[in-house]
Amino acid sequence: MNKSFDIEKVMNLIKTFAEKRDWDQFHSPKNISMALAVESSELLEIFQWLKEEQSWEVMKDEKTSVAVKDEIADVAVYLLRLCDLLSVDLESAIVDKMKKNGEKYPSELVRGSSKKYDEY
Amino acid sequence: MNKSFDIEKVMNLIKTFAEKRDWDQFHSPKNISMALAVESSELLEIFQWLKEEQSWEVMKDEKTSVAVKDEIADVAVYLLRLCDLLSVDLESAIVDKMKKNGEKYPSELVRGSSKKYDEY
Amino acid sequence: MNKSFDIEKVMNLIKTFAEKRDWDQFHSPKNISMALAVESSELLEIFQWLKEEQSWEVMKDEKTSVAVKDEIADVAVYLLRLCDLLSVDLESAIVDKMKKNGEKYPSELVRGSSKKYDEY
Amino acid sequence: MNKSFDIEKVMNLIKTFAEKRDWDQFHSPKNISMALAVESSELLEIFQWLKEEQSWEVMKDEKTSVAVKDEIADVAVYLLRLCDLLSVDLESAIVDKMKKNGEKYPSELVRGSSKKYDEY
Repeated sequence: MNKSFDIEKVMNLIKTFAEKRDWDQFHSPKNISMALAVESSELLEIFQWLKEEQSWEVMKDEKTSVAVKDEIADVAVYLLRLCDLLSVDLESAIVDKMKKNGEKYPSELVRGSSKKYDEY
Repeated sequence: MNKSFDIEKVMNLIKTFAEKRDWDQFHSPKNISMALAVESSELLEIFQWLKEEQSWEVMKDEKTSVAVKDEIADVAVYLLRLCDLLSVDLESAIVDKMKKNGEKYPSELVRGSSKKYDEY
Repeated sequence: MNKSFDIEKVMNLIKTFAEKRDWDQFHSPKNISMALAVESSELLEIFQWLKEEQSWEVMKDEKTSVAVKDEIADVAVYLLRLCDLLSVDLESAIVDKMKKNGEKYPSELVRGSSKKYDEY
Repeated sequence: MNKSFDIEKVMNLIKTFAEKRDWDQFHSPKNISMALAVESSELLEIFQWLKEEQSWEVMKDEKTSVAVKDEIADVAVYLLRLCDLLSVDLESAIVDKMKKNGEKYPSELVRGSSKKYDEY
């Protein structure tokens, strides 16, 4: 599972999908940032009334499991579309950000705490 | 650019980061769906007052460019974290969803229109 | 508490604030809908790592209490701004929507369940 | 329009609605903050593919106009619900926050600019 992710294939799939529908005209970075927020909230909606413990069980129900996968996919699609439009290399962006996070949240300082970095 | 994405490496990086800080206790799927929505909105915030045309220029300003990459990374981190927690294979999820989208939005029907599928 | 709410006074306060700063140019309904989503997520952020039980205690901590009030205010400001820009009467909109909700979710049918209306 | 807003009546309407359905059990502040974010994004969705100029015209189309009013109402309902649960006086919260905003964004300094306060 998730042993591989062919980002070039997936990005081309998304790009071609938009081009075939002449949807590029709607896909400004501003609009894509909106669509990304909308899809993130559709994922949020699945979890809104669940107890935390119940949220671990969502994949056991066939219908909910499909909904979770579909909404995760929708978020990923717009995130990858934005990376494509703005020429962001996703792996580098993540690695760079995780490094900054490591400096903001040194493990010996923050262990077991959920405070924000500016509260330390 | 984005020729490759080592999803296994990145997922391990994220997982280890949380483990070293004993943050697994906070990372229920419910809470991660909240963090994902929060980070998506931080990306949205960058674009909120920009004209669509201006949104194409965000990478030309050094400070904004870093902010865009950081927020894209934050969204990706929580999305991948959720995939890990719920054992979702991201590439399959995207490919499956794009296939459904293709059926919901046949290109000959929707060309150049931004209506929702239930408006056709 | 909340015995009264002078909506006309508050709307004028918000409108004048924007005018004095020449911010009307940024306040299209589209942009305000983005700002509203951003502020809603800042409220969400306060609760993201809290247990449900802990979320009842947020007003007991002085700093968190102020943050909650500030973020609730920010959401309200953009919501009222949008009502002003689009000439929406908020009380009527709420009363009308609650009536529809009552029809979508008849109390005898949905009692104690958090399912969505299309799942019944 | 919006000459008055009977907050006590509306809050009672919302509270009674939840009680009759035995939904209080789902309405922790944490969960309501999620529902609020979800509804804000449903409002956002209406505007996501529109040009800014088009976003001024949404009330001219009957179906879209109803959708806008319904989504604004949904956001307001959860915002007022949260005020009720956490005993927040909405008018005071707004007036206090607008005062802080006035200090963060002095009109002579920020006129015509959409920068964030920490960029000045």
